[in-house]
Amino acid sequence: MKDVSTKDTLIETGARIMLEKGYNNTGLQEVLKKSKTPKGSFYHYFDSKEDFALSIIELYKRDSDHVLSFYLDERNIPPLERLRRFFEAAARRFDTEGCWGGCLFGNLGQELADQNPVLRDRVAFVLDGWRNRFADCIAQAAERGDIGRETSAEDLADFILDSWEGAILRMKVTKSVRPLDRFMHVIFGTVLAG
Amino acid sequence: MKDVSTKDTLIETGARIMLEKGYNNTGLQEVLKKSKTPKGSFYHYFDSKEDFALSIIELYKRDSDHVLSFYLDERNIPPLERLRRFFEAAARRFDTEGCWGGCLFGNLGQELADQNPVLRDRVAFVLDGWRNRFADCIAQAAERGDIGRETSAEDLADFILDSWEGAILRMKVTKSVRPLDRFMHVIFGTVLAG
Repeated sequence: MKDVSTKDTLIETGARIMLEKGYNNTGLQEVLKKSKTPKGSFYHYFDSKEDFALSIIELYKRDSDHVLSFYLDERNIPPLERLRRFFEAAARRFDTEGCWGGCLFGNLGQELADQNPVLRDRVAFVLDGWRNRFADCIAQAAERGDIGRETSAEDLADFILDSWEGAILRMKVTKSVRPLDRFMHVIFGTVLAG
Repeated sequence: MKDVSTKDTLIETGARIMLEKGYNNTGLQEVLKKSKTPKGSFYHYFDSKEDFALSIIELYKRDSDHVLSFYLDERNIPPLERLRRFFEAAARRFDTEGCWGGCLFGNLGQELADQNPVLRDRVAFVLDGWRNRFADCIAQAAERGDIGRETSAEDLADFILDSWEGAILRMKVTKSVRPLDRFMHVIFGTVLAG
């Protein structure tokens, strides 16, 4: 039990540091110090910093899968309303956190796309998974006639995901949730307005 | 003349490295080596790495101002068509470059928003300038009746800018221009469709 806990502590501590500082700028010393873990333990659990980052991505993927399921699988609510609630909850969380950190997948993707194909591919895989969840909801909305069918559910979902990542980026840069509010307004007022 | 040239060489060399590797991961040694410049010269021109990054941002700002003017000030072409040509030219350039690098402002904003207020503010300022250029075009389109007026030109311009940054991020992660094509399709087919 203790072993599992040490590993989780390292991942959770590293996740918070990496979310703020990025991959290259996250120092092993800081992770060890903040998690009160000796260096030997780190290399017991992780082969490398890349391996550590993959574990951090898995943690965030698991957490985000839970959140996506919580909002998007709620079949008693119309599909577009589920999608809207998901983004609204995320926007509220960013507001509470002072527009800090942003999206780990967006951050690592931006930083590492041209430097680390292993981490880039993993980030791409996670984002494709989000796209598929959004596309399911949008396809259900199209089946109900809530939106038109001019653009495929997949393309709309990809566009929405990319716009969301861009809105989060601008939120970080301006330290304001206005980009997220604008995103909601245009996506649900125009792009998905049927 | 030689002095000016050395400074420009440092900035141009650093710009290319920083576009790929980000701020924290750009090493002074690599910049000096690639620009064949002694360390003393660097500190003759720049007080610090932050000061160097500010000069790089200015270089990119100047270049992007030229490109924005080239496309968006062409009064003989309808305003939305100017905007479309601007994004299409950028998408073609990214395609030619193998979806490499992305947008320096998006990259630095993503990396430094929570770490360096000076650079964050400068990036925010540049992006606001882009937004203003887009908003001018959109306002002209609204005046001509090419689009509706439900959303302000400024909000539409901000949304488009953020979505563009997100599309570039996804392009980097997927090493494909499809996100840029989708951006064009949804922005000009739906968001700005009048």
